[in-house]
Amino acid sequence: MAEVIVTRRTHFNAAHRLFNPRWSEEENRRVFGPCANPNFHGHNYNLDVSVVGEPDPATGYVVDIKTLKDLVETRVLAKFDHKNLNLDVPELANVIPTAEHIVLVCWRLLAPAIPPPGRLHRLVLWETERNLVEYTGG
Amino acid sequence: MAEVIVTRRTHFNAAHRLFNPRWSEEENRRVFGPCANPNFHGHNYNLDVSVVGEPDPATGYVVDIKTLKDLVETRVLAKFDHKNLNLDVPELANVIPTAEHIVLVCWRLLAPAIPPPGRLHRLVLWETERNLVEYTGG
Amino acid sequence: MAEVIVTRRTHFNAAHRLFNPRWSEEENRRVFGPCANPNFHGHNYNLDVSVVGEPDPATGYVVDIKTLKDLVETRVLAKFDHKNLNLDVPELANVIPTAEHIVLVCWRLLAPAIPPPGRLHRLVLWETERNLVEYTGG
Amino acid sequence: MAEVIVTRRTHFNAAHRLFNPRWSEEENRRVFGPCANPNFHGHNYNLDVSVVGEPDPATGYVVDIKTLKDLVETRVLAKFDHKNLNLDVPELANVIPTAEHIVLVCWRLLAPAIPPPGRLHRLVLWETERNLVEYTGG
Amino acid sequence: MAEVIVTRRTHFNAAHRLFNPRWSEEENRRVFGPCANPNFHGHNYNLDVSVVGEPDPATGYVVDIKTLKDLVETRVLAKFDHKNLNLDVPELANVIPTAEHIVLVCWRLLAPAIPPPGRLHRLVLWETERNLVEYTGG
Amino acid sequence: MAEVIVTRRTHFNAAHRLFNPRWSEEENRRVFGPCANPNFHGHNYNLDVSVVGEPDPATGYVVDIKTLKDLVETRVLAKFDHKNLNLDVPELANVIPTAEHIVLVCWRLLAPAIPPPGRLHRLVLWETERNLVEYTGG
Repeated sequence: MAEVIVTRRTHFNAAHRLFNPRWSEEENRRVFGPCANPNFHGHNYNLDVSVVGEPDPATGYVVDIKTLKDLVETRVLAKFDHKNLNLDVPELANVIPTAEHIVLVCWRLLAPAIPPPGRLHRLVLWETERNLVEYTGG
Repeated sequence: MAEVIVTRRTHFNAAHRLFNPRWSEEENRRVFGPCANPNFHGHNYNLDVSVVGEPDPATGYVVDIKTLKDLVETRVLAKFDHKNLNLDVPELANVIPTAEHIVLVCWRLLAPAIPPPGRLHRLVLWETERNLVEYTGG
Repeated sequence: MAEVIVTRRTHFNAAHRLFNPRWSEEENRRVFGPCANPNFHGHNYNLDVSVVGEPDPATGYVVDIKTLKDLVETRVLAKFDHKNLNLDVPELANVIPTAEHIVLVCWRLLAPAIPPPGRLHRLVLWETERNLVEYTGG
Repeated sequence: MAEVIVTRRTHFNAAHRLFNPRWSEEENRRVFGPCANPNFHGHNYNLDVSVVGEPDPATGYVVDIKTLKDLVETRVLAKFDHKNLNLDVPELANVIPTAEHIVLVCWRLLAPAIPPPGRLHRLVLWETERNLVEYTGG
Repeated sequence: MAEVIVTRRTHFNAAHRLFNPRWSEEENRRVFGPCANPNFHGHNYNLDVSVVGEPDPATGYVVDIKTLKDLVETRVLAKFDHKNLNLDVPELANVIPTAEHIVLVCWRLLAPAIPPPGRLHRLVLWETERNLVEYTGG
Repeated sequence: MAEVIVTRRTHFNAAHRLFNPRWSEEENRRVFGPCANPNFHGHNYNLDVSVVGEPDPATGYVVDIKTLKDLVETRVLAKFDHKNLNLDVPELANVIPTAEHIVLVCWRLLAPAIPPPGRLHRLVLWETERNLVEYTGG
C-alpha cells in the first residue's frame, strides 16, 4: 500500500582513463583534458543503491539491507573494486568509462537481481564529492 | 506558480531492537541478526523533512523554517529523541521499528500539521551514514 | 534512449538580510527574527546543478562537467560570490533574498544556457548544512 | 589521572569584510581580493570547542556537554550569530575579522569561563568546508 | 626516522543510558537530563584509531590498515556493536558509559595489541556529529 | 605572540598500485591484497595543508589562503592530479606509493616553500573517507 525507498551506500576504488579509441591522442586530450592521461588516474566511487517496495509486515523490511549489501558486493564491487575500469571489467570493454556509462552498467547488473517485490529504483554514483550521476531506469 | 521544496534536517538519538513477537528468539536471530539482540542497540537518526509549495511573495518563504523546526520537535522529536522505540513510543507499539516503519509513522505525525498552502513532500530517515529510507506519501 | 542526470556541486559565499521594505522594522523583526538584523549576516551556499539527457556515445558525457562548471561560474557565481545579495545582485533587486527566491533566480540564469540536448533538471541550494531548497522547474 | 578532551561543534552565520582602514580601496582589493568587497559577504562558521580534564568519577564527564553548549551560546554565539563581524561585535571593532583574529577573540571569551577542573584546550574555526584555523592558547 | 600517524575510522551502533546507581532517579534526571531515560537510547559511534610509527621500507606501511581494522573488530567492535553498553559489556560494568569512559576502555583494549614498532597514538570517539572525545594516553 | 594554525583542504585524483619490485607477484598479493592488482586502482585524495605562525597585524593572516592554495597547486597537485603515482611522479619513482610515503614526499615538496614567518605544521592525507595519514615533520 505504502511504498518506501531503501538506500544502501556502497563504495569502490578504481582506476580509469577517458579515451575514445577512434580519435587521436590530440583529439582525446582536447575533449577529455587530464582525464585522458595515458597512465590512468582514479577515484573513490560511492554507489548509492535504492530499492522501492512495500515493507513486508512480518519483517518491516522492503529489502533486508544485508541482502542488498551482499548483492551489490557480488554483482558490482567484485568486478569494479581495486580494478582498472578500462582494462579489467568486461562489461565496460567497449565503452568509455565515464560516470554516466558506469552507472548504466551498474543498473543492468543490479536490476534483475533485486528480490521481489522490491524493484531497483535509483542509482547514484559519486565520482568525487562534487561530481555525481543518477539513473532511474527511464 | 513555481513550486519550491524546502528541507530541514533534524535529528534524534534512540534505542531499538528488531524483533517479531510471533517468532522464536532463534527465528528472530536468523532474520534480524545482531539487530535482534535482546538488550537493544541504538542510532543517531537524521530526519530530513521536505515541504513543497509556492513561496509567499510577502515573505519569500514556502514555510518559515523555524515553524517547520518547531513542528518537527513537537510532533516527532519529543516522542522519539532519547527514547526506546520498542518501549516508549505508543505509535510504534505494535510495529517492528525498522527505518521503513519509523518513516511511515513520522509521515502520519507530520503531514496533517504542515501549514497550508505548504504540503509535506518527502521524508528521508538516515539510520546510519550508509543506510537510509525515503517516503513521499505514495 | 537512457537518460542520466549529471550533477555538479558549486559554492559561493554571500551576505544577505531578510527584509520586506513595505513593513516596519518591528514587523520585519517579528517575521524574520535575527535574519532581519540590519547589518546583514551571511552563508556558505552550495548550489548543486543537475542536467539530464542521454550520454553522447562519442564522449560518454551528458554534459562535459568542465563546461557545466564554467557555465555556473559565469552565469551565477560571478554575480553572487563574495557579494551582498540585497545590494549587489540586480536579479534580486526587488526580491527578498530567501533561499527560495535565490534558487528561482538561479534557474532563470542557468536553464537557457545548458548545451542541448542536455536540459536543466534540478537545482538544490544549501543555505546551511541543515536548511536547503530544491527546484525542478515545475 | 587520565585526561580526556571533549569537543562540542557549534555554528553561527555572519557577514564580514576584510579591510584595513589604513589602506586605500585599491590596496585592500590587491591584498584581500573579493574578500574586500564593500557590501560584505558571509559564511556559515563552525566552531569546535575542546575542553580537557579528568572525567569526574561521579558523572563520567570532563564537562557536561550541555553546560559547554550553553556557555558557547552565551559567550560567543549571542555576539556573533546573524551579525556583521565588522559592525556589530565590539570585541572585533579594531581588528580585521579574519578567521585567525576571530578564533583569538573566541579564546579570550571562552577560556575564563570553562568550569574547573576542565580547561579550554583547542578551538577550531571553520570558515568554509576547505578553510579552517586552530588555536591552542600558545 | 620520520614517524607518520595512520588512522582508521571504524563504527558501531549501541544503546546506553547515563545513570549513577548511587543516586536517586530524580538526581540522575537532574544531572543527566534525557540521557538518564530508563529504557535507554543509542548512538552511531565512530571510533577513529590512530597508530604512530616509522613506515617499514619494505611495505611503506606503519601498520597494515587491514590488520588494524581486524584488530579493532576483534578487540572493540565484537564487544560493543549492536550491544547495550550498560548491560552487555563487562569492561563497562561498573562505569557510567559516557563517551569519556568508553574511550578510556577502548584504549585499554587496543593499546597492548598494536603490532610493534607501531604504537597506539590517539583515539577519537564520535558520539554524534557534534559531540566527540579524544584520548592520547596521557 | 599567539600562534594560529591555518589549514587549506586540497584534493587530487590519482591511480596507484602497491607493489614491491623485489618480491614475486605472489608475495605482493599476499602482503598487499587487491591493492597489488597489476592494472592499478585509484583514489580521490584530500590533502589538508596546515601552516602555523603569528597573524600579521596588517592583514590578520598567518598566510594568505590564496597563496597557500596556489603553492599546493604548483608544488603538489600539478605533479599528482590525474596521474599514475607509480609511473608519472619522479619523486615517488623508487618508493611504494602508500599514503605514508606520499605524505612524506608532499612534506618535502611543501615545507621549503611556505612564506615565512609561517612554517609548515601538519599534513593530513585522506586516501578514503576512512583511511588517512598525518605527518608533522618529526
